[in-house]
Amino acid sequence: MVAPLKVGLAGLGTVGASVIRLVAEGKDQLAARCGRPIEIVAVTARTKGKDRGVDLSGIRWVDDPVMLARDPGIDVFVELMGGDGDPAKAAVEAALSAKKPVVTANKALLARHGFALAQLAEANNVGLNFEAAVAGGIPIIKALREGFAGNSFARVYGILNGTCNYILTRMEQEKLSFAECLKDAQRLGYAEADPTFDIEGFDTAQKLSILASIAFGTKVDADSIYVEGISSIDSADLMAADELGYRIKLLGVAVKTDTGIEQRVHPTMVPKDSAIAQVMGVTNAVTLDADGIAPITLVGPGAGGLATASAVVADIGDIARGAHVSPFGCATDSLTVAGKAPMQMHEGGYYIRLLAVDKPGTAAAIATRLAEQQISLESIVQRHLGTEGGKDARAVSGPVPVILITYATTEDAVRRALAAVKADQVISGEPQLIRIEKNR
Amino acid sequence: MVAPLKVGLAGLGTVGASVIRLVAEGKDQLAARCGRPIEIVAVTARTKGKDRGVDLSGIRWVDDPVMLARDPGIDVFVELMGGDGDPAKAAVEAALSAKKPVVTANKALLARHGFALAQLAEANNVGLNFEAAVAGGIPIIKALREGFAGNSFARVYGILNGTCNYILTRMEQEKLSFAECLKDAQRLGYAEADPTFDIEGFDTAQKLSILASIAFGTKVDADSIYVEGISSIDSADLMAADELGYRIKLLGVAVKTDTGIEQRVHPTMVPKDSAIAQVMGVTNAVTLDADGIAPITLVGPGAGGLATASAVVADIGDIARGAHVSPFGCATDSLTVAGKAPMQMHEGGYYIRLLAVDKPGTAAAIATRLAEQQISLESIVQRHLGTEGGKDARAVSGPVPVILITYATTEDAVRRALAAVKADQVISGEPQLIRIEKNR
Repeated sequence: MVAPLKVGLAGLGTVGASVIRLVAEGKDQLAARCGRPIEIVAVTARTKGKDRGVDLSGIRWVDDPVMLARDPGIDVFVELMGGDGDPAKAAVEAALSAKKPVVTANKALLARHGFALAQLAEANNVGLNFEAAVAGGIPIIKALREGFAGNSFARVYGILNGTCNYILTRMEQEKLSFAECLKDAQRLGYAEADPTFDIEGFDTAQKLSILASIAFGTKVDADSIYVEGISSIDSADLMAADELGYRIKLLGVAVKTDTGIEQRVHPTMVPKDSAIAQVMGVTNAVTLDADGIAPITLVGPGAGGLATASAVVADIGDIARGAHVSPFGCATDSLTVAGKAPMQMHEGGYYIRLLAVDKPGTAAAIATRLAEQQISLESIVQRHLGTEGGKDARAVSGPVPVILITYATTEDAVRRALAAVKADQVISGEPQLIRIEKNR
Repeated sequence: MVAPLKVGLAGLGTVGASVIRLVAEGKDQLAARCGRPIEIVAVTARTKGKDRGVDLSGIRWVDDPVMLARDPGIDVFVELMGGDGDPAKAAVEAALSAKKPVVTANKALLARHGFALAQLAEANNVGLNFEAAVAGGIPIIKALREGFAGNSFARVYGILNGTCNYILTRMEQEKLSFAECLKDAQRLGYAEADPTFDIEGFDTAQKLSILASIAFGTKVDADSIYVEGISSIDSADLMAADELGYRIKLLGVAVKTDTGIEQRVHPTMVPKDSAIAQVMGVTNAVTLDADGIAPITLVGPGAGGLATASAVVADIGDIARGAHVSPFGCATDSLTVAGKAPMQMHEGGYYIRLLAVDKPGTAAAIATRLAEQQISLESIVQRHLGTEGGKDARAVSGPVPVILITYATTEDAVRRALAAVKADQVISGEPQLIRIEKNR
């Protein structure tokens, strides 16, 4: 019999408890699949006494994560504490330095210190696996890191935050406001009491930075990501998107451009017939556009104790099997510093929703400002608010909603045109701007 | 510098040529990702002189595949010849016996001899990788084999044949007949001159047998698969499906049941809101239902030279990295003989389309026969053919189409009920029967 792989686990939240359960219940299967038994031999967490609904008897308790990481009795260290600083960082560093492979679900840590940790793992010739850090139960890291060794990627994008997709789905399907849906998401435990990190796109950005690094062979660079959240999305936008053949999703998008890697997180209009547009509720999805082949999309649970634990256990399984893959897909000295493609150079179509002042010359002024920036329009929808009830449109005073869809242009041109339109005082309030992401 | 991995490749069709191109063009990236260079050093194919649009200069030509497989100058043997017998089988056996890992795209060979080949690979302690054998560019074998080490699967199903999905998509979207769409598929190169293997479900069955073996840890057993193709599908079925909230897809389905593994290939009604229902045209998709977590679906190109070559190159990359995973996910002595769940015990909902004779008592007879078998109906749609034109329904004589959707029942009960209905002579011709596959 081969000696078991002895696991030390730090962090006993929902995911940690599920890992313990999966490893215990799937013992024989796991041993058969990995060629050796896997045993959780020691754990640590903030509070010792707490009932976590799993059997911890026979598992040694260690008070300090760094101590556990260095413990000579463990072969692999699993970090499920979270946070981009200590104790998670110190513990992961301690484990790697002690030549113990690490499995972590910590996206924040990787987005900030991923490159340095990969160097440390490499220097000590041990693995650093983090399938659970991006899109929970979807094996996207494995797919990207190992499944396309011969391919170059043109674009990688996805729905990486279940909270935002849940909110957008409910807003669309039930014609509810953002505020109502957020409240429900909080009530159901899909959103935090302070939802900023999720709804403003920061969570998506951290995950995107990890995917982009692997896809493009670049050093993780979360700081250069353009980030815009979903709190400004109005039901009117979702309804207009529907009429125009789109859905609105918060996407993380990384694209190879002539100037470098463009990384951005923002509400995005996606064609209704795209695979990503079908993804509803808390579900996550990632689409890989490799050169020369049709898009590949992976869809599944992005969060949840058991789904995330599946990814953690698969990572442990890879270590048990002796697999050794570079953390970001290739050796750290091959990872390049990505040229940053600035957002103002972004090229694509735009959805623009304006409240036009109802006076002569307004349409001409808007059209002129767009034309000055060489922006062509694919469609214009203007609807006098009163007409739906059958009343004469002229009877309604006040600003009129106008929706414009542009052909491909640049962020810079759109921004300039809208600034000029605003200066002309022909619109009321701020224009709404949503980028369109086409299928290739 | 690490020594390159020397590859011998047998079979220079579209996939083989694409592999040579990918390896040549992605040389540096491949070396960075796999930790060592990969070189195609020798090839063999049926005809030597032929122009395949790739540069074969500097690559040694070997006349015989078995000779190539044993060639001391190669480290890994790639088999892209196809066919479940020799020379593919003999060559793969020769390579494994010579302790050379094998990469193959040969579903037929694996469906028939997969277990024996896995034993041979194991005895010689070398890998046998076949990502390209199922669903082309989708990394489904890797996902199943490595991505869910801790999970048990309840069901695995997918669209595994692009030809059938192309035909069904066009039939649905353009209301065309099966014959018209098949002809177009042949013209476009999506279907063979003799399309039987694809359209009658045999290709799907071979692929399903491989997925089922890995998912359930069983010996490949293609012979026990119930197989039904799409040639009997009528536009009327697609239209009825649409009205009832379904789409029709040719699915390969493997389910764990109390009596064993149920493996079946047949046209299937899938709810329109399922991920699999969104998959159109030649695209493939596989959904994994692991215990306790939401379904995971992988969507992408199921065929095509470059997509399939991507999978082959990724498999070679795994060998270059020294990864070693059992061919079917665990050691051959852990693979069990699956109890075969017979099709007559299949449980699920059914779509039944009948041509009812237009005479008093017909509806009562049908209802009685179903009730005798304890079959409950979810919906009944009966439409007199003449009514659409506004004419009086009574004016139309002849049989009337009736569509029934049952609640979950057994195959056996449905078959008995329909036999009784036929014996009653209240229907004209053969009833159409399509199984419904629900989301979990």
